[in-house]
Amino acid sequence: MKEHPTVEVCFSPKLYKYKLTKTPFTAVIVDILRATTSICAAFDHGVRKIIPVAGLDEARDMKNKGFTVACERNGEVLDFADMGNSASDFRRDDLKGETVVFSTTNGTKTIHLAHDASEILIGAFVNIDALAGYLIDKNENVVIICAAWKNLFNLEDSVFAGALSERLLSHGFTTVCDSALASVDLWEKAKNNLKGYLSKSSHRNRLKHLVSDEDFNYTVTLNVTGVVPHLKGENLVPVSSAF
Amino acid sequence: MKEHPTVEVCFSPKLYKYKLTKTPFTAVIVDILRATTSICAAFDHGVRKIIPVAGLDEARDMKNKGFTVACERNGEVLDFADMGNSASDFRRDDLKGETVVFSTTNGTKTIHLAHDASEILIGAFVNIDALAGYLIDKNENVVIICAAWKNLFNLEDSVFAGALSERLLSHGFTTVCDSALASVDLWEKAKNNLKGYLSKSSHRNRLKHLVSDEDFNYTVTLNVTGVVPHLKGENLVPVSSAF
Repeated sequence: MKEHPTVEVCFSPKLYKYKLTKTPFTAVIVDILRATTSICAAFDHGVRKIIPVAGLDEARDMKNKGFTVACERNGEVLDFADMGNSASDFRRDDLKGETVVFSTTNGTKTIHLAHDASEILIGAFVNIDALAGYLIDKNENVVIICAAWKNLFNLEDSVFAGALSERLLSHGFTTVCDSALASVDLWEKAKNNLKGYLSKSSHRNRLKHLVSDEDFNYTVTLNVTGVVPHLKGENLVPVSSAF
Repeated sequence: MKEHPTVEVCFSPKLYKYKLTKTPFTAVIVDILRATTSICAAFDHGVRKIIPVAGLDEARDMKNKGFTVACERNGEVLDFADMGNSASDFRRDDLKGETVVFSTTNGTKTIHLAHDASEILIGAFVNIDALAGYLIDKNENVVIICAAWKNLFNLEDSVFAGALSERLLSHGFTTVCDSALASVDLWEKAKNNLKGYLSKSSHRNRLKHLVSDEDFNYTVTLNVTGVVPHLKGENLVPVSSAF
């Protein structure tokens, strides 16, 4: 157990290979709008397992094999799919115990990027304190990887990174990472009006026709769920209470 | 002339190729610690022309050709060089009218990266208002490129990007870039105690033995000079008052 584990933030997947943290470390994948928020929503509503896939072909293949598939592009649920990728698509009770294939190009790429991590966790505002608690108990170095938007820095993932970093830094973690320091300052600025702050984000504006007000309200609500998803083999499942 | 030119910020050279701004645009290169601050200091003290070079071999070749060469590595002036790369190396009067070869691996790479810009300018806190005035008069889209530290986000370049973005946004520029929005918020947080704020930067801590207190004080002082350096061919020279 480390006395002072470190926290580092990557603002874009494209900066991951330059990260300072050496192994072993735990990776946290963040794609607030929308993959990681939706994944938390799914587990919170009893989904047993999520199979993340990157491409449409893979999603269609999985549908043909009989899986329940969540897949959309440009806000439209694809004809072969059972549902879209919004948080609201998963906030229902008939998926209890199910396995769902979740199509997310960015999310899947970012998850695979972090293959050198000891564990890959899924983070969003909706599960932040449960996630922070898990990381604090685990007491290992942490790298928070923002899925970003077209590889560019985005506000919502970065502000989340700040909120999580702040929690870790106030529990004995340290940092030599300027991105972590900056993200904490952005969170400080945002936290009293998270929804208002993120509404100025260009990504949010771009997604306005894709993200409903209901979904956006859910996305910026802290601690809706105590679930902490992690990658087990190729699948996402909730971590068991002990690790 | 554009009615509402845009401002965009790249937090790392590695994110430059994903930028949103189309040509034509003006690029501002930022390497606060230390290249762009030192380049401004040099012109402020009468240097006529700076030839930026990336590598040591190139710097040594230029010395053999009779040029005055500023070149150091790890805080040590190289044996063949005339001076180091600190701002204080240029704050002297005997370089008036001279051409100086300036060795900066990061800075030179970042300058060459921006070859698709209509003009490449050099920015630092010491020339910020002159630079902002020039950009506002020119009224073209602007992309601010942080040289970063080992390709990772750093606080000093990003906070400068925020200070410059704030000036442009308050003079009719617009943005759809989350990095610009975030950098403005970081500047807001930093501006009342810039030195204190940047002292927490990991890069500053790493450079502590390379950057003297005197140099650091100079670096965080706004508007020491009215000079605006730009690239002309392969060389840096001050822009003439009219363009």
